[in-house]
Amino acid sequence: LRGLLIRGGRVLYAEDLPAPGPPDSGAPAEECRVRVLRAGICATDLALARGYMGFAGVPGHEFVGVALDGPLAGRRVVGEINAACGACPTCRAGLARHCPHRTVLGILGRSGAFAEELRLPAGNLHAVPDEVPTDHAVFAEPLAAAFEIPAQVELVPGQPARVLGDGRLGLLCAQVLALFGVEVALHGRHPERAEHLPAGVVHAGPIPAGDAGERSPLVVEATGDPQVLQQALALVAPRGTLVLKTTSERASALDLAPLVVDEITLVGSRCGPFEPALAALAAGSVTVEPLLHARFPLREGAAAFARAARPGTLKVLLDIDPA
Amino acid sequence: LRGLLIRGGRVLYAEDLPAPGPPDSGAPAEECRVRVLRAGICATDLALARGYMGFAGVPGHEFVGVALDGPLAGRRVVGEINAACGACPTCRAGLARHCPHRTVLGILGRSGAFAEELRLPAGNLHAVPDEVPTDHAVFAEPLAAAFEIPAQVELVPGQPARVLGDGRLGLLCAQVLALFGVEVALHGRHPERAEHLPAGVVHAGPIPAGDAGERSPLVVEATGDPQVLQQALALVAPRGTLVLKTTSERASALDLAPLVVDEITLVGSRCGPFEPALAALAAGSVTVEPLLHARFPLREGAAAFARAARPGTLKVLLDIDPA
Repeated sequence: LRGLLIRGGRVLYAEDLPAPGPPDSGAPAEECRVRVLRAGICATDLALARGYMGFAGVPGHEFVGVALDGPLAGRRVVGEINAACGACPTCRAGLARHCPHRTVLGILGRSGAFAEELRLPAGNLHAVPDEVPTDHAVFAEPLAAAFEIPAQVELVPGQPARVLGDGRLGLLCAQVLALFGVEVALHGRHPERAEHLPAGVVHAGPIPAGDAGERSPLVVEATGDPQVLQQALALVAPRGTLVLKTTSERASALDLAPLVVDEITLVGSRCGPFEPALAALAAGSVTVEPLLHARFPLREGAAAFARAARPGTLKVLLDIDPA
Repeated sequence: LRGLLIRGGRVLYAEDLPAPGPPDSGAPAEECRVRVLRAGICATDLALARGYMGFAGVPGHEFVGVALDGPLAGRRVVGEINAACGACPTCRAGLARHCPHRTVLGILGRSGAFAEELRLPAGNLHAVPDEVPTDHAVFAEPLAAAFEIPAQVELVPGQPARVLGDGRLGLLCAQVLALFGVEVALHGRHPERAEHLPAGVVHAGPIPAGDAGERSPLVVEATGDPQVLQQALALVAPRGTLVLKTTSERASALDLAPLVVDEITLVGSRCGPFEPALAALAAGSVTVEPLLHARFPLREGAAAFARAARPGTLKVLLDIDPA
């Protein structure tokens, strides 16, 4: 099989990959094979290529494919990336995405989506509604991560909020908050990006420094830069909430006294529910077309990674099955 | 008037203090004079004496006194330490304890309780029930801070929780959680301290290192040591909550990746409601007697501070009016 490999800090194209087998660990649930059509490169993939988590293997976790077997055989599918054991106390408590025995597609113990074929448990797959183009459905996974915010935090219509970071994830988070009636001020270096966004999101320029900005009851940090956290804290109103989306690769210096004095709640937020993400893509209530910046065939994977790493780049797609 | 002063990193006894005037800033609410009977030394006082917040003046915010005027004139009172302006948007939103214009008794812009007399807005004072001894009522303020936890976090009866730190605040937090039916494992270096605590609190030895301890849905960090935070995070179960009580004086290195990956909620927690604290002291449902470690007359304030700073010391009282 054709696919990309990360090895020794490099992205390699291979044509002789074995078909993906069962995951490295975990109770094998009923697994399905998926022929991958298209995939998206995410900041986590770039981090893995730099050596994050000591990753070696096939990366990739944002994808659209066609199920080759199982209940959705023959249909276009997207997939939740955490494959849980289904049996441990965490799974039985309904927190399968946090199963300590989980494998994670293209990240942890499970070969990823930047290859012609992948495997996931049947329960992880979701059919893509016919009206959603394949290119757009690639956004189901990061958009689900944005929909994790309303699953964790009560959003109040009319309430002001700031989203820090006008990159891929920030643009999606801002749109999801706006869907819930929140009045979003989006911060970052690219004011032109807000032109294409639905009503309810206003680009408010760079992230205000220190105490320069008015403090908001809700701030979402989606910059990808762990150094922004201190600045983000200063923008949260007393008793307010800061949603943290950025996974840092190392410790950073942080003064949490403001968090205690102002009784701020800091909410770590990761993967989210696919159902509302697919519904929003089908309804066109979230705009993803302007986020598509480039497209590469699988064999040019190294170039695709380099392009995705270039500052100012939004989503880079890999055409895996050009059909 | 007699009282203690912090100046240049020293604790000084003075007999010629002026009567406390109106606060340095903020709209003057109806203020009452209070003759102080007894006061408690808290970790914040020790930090102020070391130069925290550049403090200079009369410290002290845990006290019992007799109101000299106002609606509670002649009665024993304790007092909420944050004096709000009452007029700004934060106050009007019901968050007076977070008023940006607030003064804080013995901490910020308002002369404190380690003196014969203090002033607070009438609305800050609470009458002490007759059945609560004066020594015990000194704990109203820190106990209120412990009661802030159930005001911020839903406590589930039967749910396990860990309280990190078996010092003054940790012992109070553990008891408050137990009042709500939470099964508390208290961690620290003093297993003997749990002997005097009510049922529902078990001393579980030192704070487990790294991934050695079973992860809990709720962890309360009350060690006073900001360096413990990383260890505390590792003890929180996925989607669990970490309540942070320690105010650090400086930034510390922190890797928040586990917070995001495990979707942990970090809740900053500071001052709390006095009503349930006084009710618990009156009912005897919270035990404070074993926390009383020493007592000094006002003129021996420097010795009292030195004693309070000695490792292993719980509450040190100042007898201000020996009556």
